[in-house]
This record gives sequence, C-alpha cells and structure tokens, in this order.
Amino acid sequence: MQTLIARFRVHLARCSVLLALLLTVGYMPLRAASAQVDQWEVFEVALKGPTDGNPYVDVRLTGVFTDGVRTVTVPGFYDGDGAYRIRFMPETPGEWRYETKSNRWPLTDKSGVFTVMPAKPGNHGPVRVKNTFHFAYADGTPYRPIGTTCYSWTHRPEAMEEQTLKTLAGSPFNKVRMAIFPQAHGVKHMPPTRWPYQGTPPRSWDLTRFNPEFFRHLERRIGQLRDLGIECDLILFHPYDDDEEWGFETMTPELDDHYVRYVVARLGAYRNVWWSVANEYDFLRTKTEEDWDRVFRLLQTYDAHQRLRSIHNGKQIYDHNKPWVTHVSLQNAMAAEEPGRATLYRDVYRKPVIFDELKYEGNHHLRWAQLTGPELVQHFWACTVAGTYGGHSEFFSDDKEVVWLAHGGVLKGESAPRLAFLRRILEESPAGGLDPSDQWQDPRMAGKPGHYYLMYFGHEQPTSWVPMLYRNGLTEGMEFKADVIDTWGMTITPVPGVIVTKKADRYQFTDRAGQAIALPGRKYMAVRLRYSGGAAPVSTAKPPMEP
Amino acid sequence: MQTLIARFRVHLARCSVLLALLLTVGYMPLRAASAQVDQWEVFEVALKGPTDGNPYVDVRLTGVFTDGVRTVTVPGFYDGDGAYRIRFMPETPGEWRYETKSNRWPLTDKSGVFTVMPAKPGNHGPVRVKNTFHFAYADGTPYRPIGTTCYSWTHRPEAMEEQTLKTLAGSPFNKVRMAIFPQAHGVKHMPPTRWPYQGTPPRSWDLTRFNPEFFRHLERRIGQLRDLGIECDLILFHPYDDDEEWGFETMTPELDDHYVRYVVARLGAYRNVWWSVANEYDFLRTKTEEDWDRVFRLLQTYDAHQRLRSIHNGKQIYDHNKPWVTHVSLQNAMAAEEPGRATLYRDVYRKPVIFDELKYEGNHHLRWAQLTGPELVQHFWACTVAGTYGGHSEFFSDDKEVVWLAHGGVLKGESAPRLAFLRRILEESPAGGLDPSDQWQDPRMAGKPGHYYLMYFGHEQPTSWVPMLYRNGLTEGMEFKADVIDTWGMTITPVPGVIVTKKADRYQFTDRAGQAIALPGRKYMAVRLRYSGGAAPVSTAKPPMEP
Repeated sequence: MQTLIARFRVHLARCSVLLALLLTVGYMPLRAASAQVDQWEVFEVALKGPTDGNPYVDVRLTGVFTDGVRTVTVPGFYDGDGAYRIRFMPETPGEWRYETKSNRWPLTDKSGVFTVMPAKPGNHGPVRVKNTFHFAYADGTPYRPIGTTCYSWTHRPEAMEEQTLKTLAGSPFNKVRMAIFPQAHGVKHMPPTRWPYQGTPPRSWDLTRFNPEFFRHLERRIGQLRDLGIECDLILFHPYDDDEEWGFETMTPELDDHYVRYVVARLGAYRNVWWSVANEYDFLRTKTEEDWDRVFRLLQTYDAHQRLRSIHNGKQIYDHNKPWVTHVSLQNAMAAEEPGRATLYRDVYRKPVIFDELKYEGNHHLRWAQLTGPELVQHFWACTVAGTYGGHSEFFSDDKEVVWLAHGGVLKGESAPRLAFLRRILEESPAGGLDPSDQWQDPRMAGKPGHYYLMYFGHEQPTSWVPMLYRNGLTEGMEFKADVIDTWGMTITPVPGVIVTKKADRYQFTDRAGQAIALPGRKYMAVRLRYSGGAAPVSTAKPPMEP
Repeated sequence: MQTLIARFRVHLARCSVLLALLLTVGYMPLRAASAQVDQWEVFEVALKGPTDGNPYVDVRLTGVFTDGVRTVTVPGFYDGDGAYRIRFMPETPGEWRYETKSNRWPLTDKSGVFTVMPAKPGNHGPVRVKNTFHFAYADGTPYRPIGTTCYSWTHRPEAMEEQTLKTLAGSPFNKVRMAIFPQAHGVKHMPPTRWPYQGTPPRSWDLTRFNPEFFRHLERRIGQLRDLGIECDLILFHPYDDDEEWGFETMTPELDDHYVRYVVARLGAYRNVWWSVANEYDFLRTKTEEDWDRVFRLLQTYDAHQRLRSIHNGKQIYDHNKPWVTHVSLQNAMAAEEPGRATLYRDVYRKPVIFDELKYEGNHHLRWAQLTGPELVQHFWACTVAGTYGGHSEFFSDDKEVVWLAHGGVLKGESAPRLAFLRRILEESPAGGLDPSDQWQDPRMAGKPGHYYLMYFGHEQPTSWVPMLYRNGLTEGMEFKADVIDTWGMTITPVPGVIVTKKADRYQFTDRAGQAIALPGRKYMAVRLRYSGGAAPVSTAKPPMEP
C-alpha cells in the first residue's frame, strides 16, 4: 500500500502542475452537467469506477476545485459497489469548476461546473477560531461552545439514536463529542450493529476495507446534528476498545493513516465536523507522541477544509503549542473548578481553551463521574469568567448500563437547564468573547473592557458587593446597568439605578456614590454590568503594560 | 563584523576536522606547563595576543578540551591589554588536554595538559534538571531553589555590595536573580560606577568594545556567590533602561549576539551561573519573539557548559515547551497563591517550574510589591506543595530609594526567616523532590508516594484533619509519623503515636484507628507524614492510569 500511495503522490504532483497550467490559460473542459449548491453545504461529485482488487487501497481520487480565485484539492473516497465520491464544501458563492485526478482512467480528467448560492438563513458556515481565545462561524456569528459528550450514540439501536437526537434538539448543547470507533461500555447489552471495517466481530476485520454502510449511517447522523445547529467533535482514536477485543487500538501506523484519510475524505466536507485526534490519548499505550504528531500533520495537509483540530488528554497534556493544534481540548476538572486555575491555560497556549471533560454529573462509583448538578454548573461558570469554555456529560447508571456519556438516550441530571440559562447569558454578551478583566489579579471577572463585566462568586456567599472594575477601557462618569444573576436558580434581577464610574485607586474604578450591590448570601451568584451611557468607553488598543 | 564571524566559522570547521584527526592518532603537542584544577572549578588558559584593531570583534579564539572520552569546544574572550583567556569547567577528574584555535597566529595551536582533581567538600558542581520537575547538583545532591532577586546589586558602591553579600550569607537564599545591565531604579542617588561597554554615560558607548574592568568586577561577585553556595541567575536583557538613556535595549541583533557571546565566553565556566535570557521579556518592545528564540539558540550552541536556560515574562508567557528552555521561570503571582493553580504549569511544560516573581514583600505603591510577609511565605508553601518553587524579593522604600529588589543592602521584611524554615523542611524531604500526591484532585498535598506527604492548609483554619492519602504507593498496615508544622510560627510539633494505613475508599487510605490530627485553627499550617515502619511501601513504577 505504501508504495502505491507514494506513487500516487508523484502522480498527483505532476497532475497539479498540468492543472495549474490549464487554469492559467483559462481552459477547463466541461463534461458534467451544471449543478447548484449552497455555500457551506456539501457538493458531491459521484463517479463510477473500478471494482477489481481493493479499491480502498488501489485507487486514489482527487478533485481540484476552483472559483478562479482560490483552488482547493479535495480527496475522494470509495463508497462500495463501484461508486466513488468527492465531497467539497464551497466557501464563497459564484461559479466553481472542478477536475478530477486519479491513478485509474475511468476516474481521471472528469470535470464540471457548478453554482454556489449564498447560504440560506440558519446556515452560518463552519466554526473557526476568532480573537485568539474564542470562536465564530464563518459568517461572523459568535459561537460559544456548550458541549456534551456521547461517545457511542451512533452505535446504538435506531430507536435510541432517535431518542438521543430528540434529547439534543431540546438541550442547550451546540457541540457533541462522539467517537467513530465504538467503545466497550455497555456492549454486552447492546453490541454495535455496524462496524467501520468489513469482516466479522470481534476481530476478523479486513482493516484495509471500510464498511460503507457504517459510514453512510454516521454521516446521516452528522448531517442531523448539523441541521440542529450542533457541532460534531469527532474522536478519531480512543482507548476504550473492549479489552483489545476489536483491535482498533493496535493497527499499524499505515493502517491508522489509511483510516484517517478515509474519514477525512468522507466526512470532512460537513461543515459541523471538528477533529479530535484522540480521547485520553495518553491512555492509548499502543501509540507514541510521534504517532499523534503524524496524525495531526496528516490532517493538516490532507483535510482540504481545514476543520478544527485538537486532542484530549488523560493525565498527560499534549503540547497544544504545536502549530497544527487549533484549540485546546482539555481534561482537568480540578483546573475547571476555579477561574484562577482555568485561565492559566489561555496564557500558555494563546488558543481557545475548552474543558471538554471537567468531570461528569452522575452517581458513578468512580470519582470522575460524581459531580452534583450544581457543581457541574459551577465549573462551567468558572470556565466562563476564566475566558474559557466548559463541557458537559452525565453518568447515571441504570439496570441496562445506559448512560448519556456512552449511549445517549435521555438526560437524567439537573445541569442541562442551567447550561441553557448560561447559554442565554453568553448570547447576550459581547460578540468578541469574554476575556479576564484583570489578568492575574482577580480571576473572578471577565468581560469586554469599558463595555461588559461578568463577576462570578462561585462558592463565596457574599451579601453585598461593591463594584470594582479594572481601569482598562474606563474613565470617570461612565454608566453601567447591573443585574444580579442566580446561576442555579436561573434568575436575572436588575439592580435599580446605574453604577457611575469613579476612580478608586491606581488600578480600579468603583461607583461614584459608593453603592454596594445587594446579594442574597447564597452560592453560585453572579453580577453583570453593562455599559448604558455617560462618558464614552476608552479605547483599549494598548492596555497598560505593568502586571 | 558579520563577515568576519562567518569567515571564522569556516576556519573553525576546518580546524575541527584537523583536530579530530590529531586526537584520533593520539598526537597532541604539549607546549604549556602542566597545571591542576578541581573538578567543576574554572581552568583558565591565558594567552598574549594582538592589540591592533578591535580585538573584541577582529579576534576569535577557541579552546578544544578533551580527556580522551569527551571533547568540549570552549569560546575564549579578550580581556584587554593584549590578554586573551579561555575558561573551562572540567566535569570529570583525570588528565585533560587542550589546543587553541584562532584566526590570529599568536593565539592558535597553543596546547597544554592539566590534571583535574576530584572536587573538594562543599563543591557539588553545577545545578542541573533532575526527575523532570526538580534540580540536583552534578554530584547528585538535591538542589531546592529558594531564590531572591537583586537586579542591580553589582552596580552599587563597594560598601553596599559587601553589605549585600553579608546579608545573603546569613539568608536562606541559594539563588539570586541579577542583571548584567544596570537598571534605572535609584540611579539618581547611586549611578553605576562601571559600565559594560567602553565609552561614557549616558550614551557614548562603543558597543563593540566591552569594558574588562566591569566584567572583572562582575565575575568576582559571581565567584563570591559561588563560595556562599548561591546560584547566580544572570539576566542578559531587561526593559529597565533609564528611559532609553543608555541604549542597551535598542542594540542591533548583531550587537546583541556579540554581547551574548562575550558574556558566555567570560562567565559561562562559573558553575553557579544560570542564563535568564530576559526579565519581563515581553515588556522589551524593541525585540520580537524571534529575537528571543535566536538568543536561546545561540546559548544552546555556543555555551560549552550548557548552563540552565530560561526567560522570565511580563504579561505574555514565552513558550517554555521550546526545546532550548531547561526550566520555567515565571511571573504570575495569582498562580502562586494557590497550589491548584501553580501545579498546572508543570503539566503543560514537563519541566521544573520556578515562580521567580510571585509579587514581592513590601510597601510599594504598585501592587506587585505590596505582599505582607505572611502572604509571601504562603505563596512559597503553595508553590512547594504544587511541586514547584517560589522566588523572593522585597521592596521597602527608604529616603535613598534603596530597596533590596534593585540594590541589595539589608532585608527589612519578615519573610526571610520563614523561608529559612521552609528550606529546612525541604532539606528533610525526599531527595527526588516533592510531587503532587493526587494530581488534579486535591492539590494541597505533595510528597513521595508511600514515603512522605506534606499537606498544606494555606488560608484554611481547620482544628483537626483526618489523614487521607492517595493510594499510589500504599497498602494496609504502613506506619507514618506525623508532625504539625506552623509555617509562620516556625514550629514542628510531633504528633504522638503513629498513623497506620487502612483503605478508606477506592482512592484513599486513612488511619486504621480513625484518629484525627489536632490543628490549632490558624492559617498557614501544614502536616508532614513520614513513613516509619510496618508494611513496606508499594512500588510506584506504574501508578494508576485513571484520572
């Protein structure tokens, strides 16, 4: 296989030169009918090709797409029964052309033209990194992840999968972490009905031949998540094989790469796909850090759509400063307990930080799934004022071992409605994202200097709070409306009157009249201050340098 | 200058080949008298050479040292008045030989032999990284940094410098951060009497010609620190120029490198030297991150002795995962306040972490120097149980603007005796260093599994504590002696009897008799548990994987 791949690379390189020449002189033979697709939707080129040998290995297919301004080379894949497909997500409206290249005659030099229409309402495009620490859809709409995890929900009986979709539709979650390979938990009661490879369980796979039916099912589910506005954080590898029964943890690097290429070609055009290279990567003791670097680089070069890329740790944290990591996907509940901890990861990585695993709500006998609802919500709020993002899941055992974390189904915990409330608060916050207001001094407050402040008291139970705002963006005489927020009780209580800024000391501003905001002396309270008038906010292009 | 340097590089490469051949056939002409030096002391080759032109730029000199097993290429330097020197610190006893190479005839092909004697008592060699997160001297003796900062103490009048040395001699500090370039603070009262370059202040320097007298003075002080057992954390660049009066912040990259090469050649053989590439590097707005990378790489390739290397931040943290960083030198007091924060940097860098600046004890009007003594000591203890290290300084203004942070002199704060007490506790702790006992669960405890536990309560004021120890290294029936430690009061009170381990739950062991250790209900208390008998500690070669 390696030899073939290498040979194909040479072939591709030669073709690219030829194609570049063709495009330069404006010549593009049109043999396919014109077609139409919306911006950020999937345009698919379907071709009939050879069925002899092992098409998954023997045949390489690529589409080169251009609108005359940008040119994108997109890998194709074999879908069984002689069907080959190339999936492309166009980013800009207008006329696009493509030409195929393959190492086999029936698939090469096919070309066509198609029209990309502006996105329909509700289609905001793929999510990308914005303002260093945050995210936005391609159309500029802010994206604030409130994710959950259902590792194996797409490996369950049809009725349960439909139930999971229904639950998600009524939930606050706009991202789901889910694994391509099935996981062991609960398989005795509900063995997977489809497998990613051809062959028979538990171990008689042909690891060079994928199972198109498995992937057709998976991509249908990904499409349904997309239609619900939910990002799909796809886990490529994980250490949850059934005591090595299935063997997906012990493939060779060549087979790992073969798998990654297939997944990228097949699923990468879906705009809601993110790549999570592995879950608890360091618990997968059959691979080295160099293996993970290689998979990242493969994604970086092979994924035409440049989906978001991260990797999730067990006990050892991957070096997220490596250039192929787009955002930080963390497990460390201790760090998510308290904003002063959570925010430290921002400084070291200068990338968006998502605590995808901050322990789970549940009644499990293991301590990573014993959080109460209030504590899980507390963690989310701590992450929020740290300028980072939290991640949910739950583990409430029942007699069939059906738990949301592994299988989906229904939510049994108390946190989801409170996360919906947090989502509302975030939707009312500045588009550019919340950043810590006074880095390394008081980590309880985040916002946008001069415009918006969110102070979270966590486990403190104050009965009043005198507003103290870091000087950046402020001057005297600015007015702010205040709200008292009960993050667990889900209430927003406006404070009468306005706060008017006045210098308190070298670093902070407070209220001119010295008024304190009354608080109920309970845990989990927050205060929100929003600029409402008076003197104008000060430009914060160059914030004070001294620490 | 660049051309000359490049030319010399070619020359050197050619010479190396020649020398390698000479060494292979065992031929080494001996022209210098035999000499003797202790292991880890400085062996100096002194030569007379040209005085024409600009010897700092025009002449390059290198010594190649070998004991037949290892070969070390050491840069030489010009010391004025036709004197050239090569300084080398041998690492192993036995017979060593050297041969010089230079682009000038009088300095090249000089050779000699000398005998390295085993180190005398008290000479432990240079400090190196040990066990990923800790340090040890070359002879294996543990080194636990308790550092302080006196940026400009070597730029002061003789009497004050002697006073500083006397203060250090009676202090707990075994590391001093100090800058080569003077800093502006207090210069109106006490202008520096020596300058690193030839010329006249404030700005008429010849930045290609160093001032040997300045460096002779500096290296005398470095030697005195060495003799006191104090590491010298030398700051190469800093942003504290006197409003650009001196111009050391705005040199070209070529002049920066010229300076770094001179400093490395001149001072790098002192075993107590560490390189701090810059202080608050990001506040030096005249350089880019690429400049800092370049200086690091220069040290990495040019420093024959491979001294410890780090860089200290203002608000933006350098990527300490870069391979040339040996340990993490941080400013972030907020992170040092609480062990759950401090420990996070260990995970992301997998290197020793020193909070060289965790705010200072003092009465300054700026908030980075307003810590009370108890709070500074609290930060140190938080760092300790986080498996990291703290850093001290103080800023108590007097009418002459003499403050320890800038000038040295005498200590006026309350923290130093308590840091001496901490140093004693550390000296009684396991040689391999303290690591968090239950990473990401309870950050208040560090130790060595099965052998030693240090629990620090910080601002909590419990009246009793039931020992709970993470399972790693433990089994039932192990016995521990307990001490109650008042970190501020500097008392160690043994608890009568022994703790005998018994499983408490899946994760923890507690005392078989369920006894609680009585505590006085004050802040800043700690408990120490040391293995004393009973069942043997369990091997911790493969700790539990689950988080």
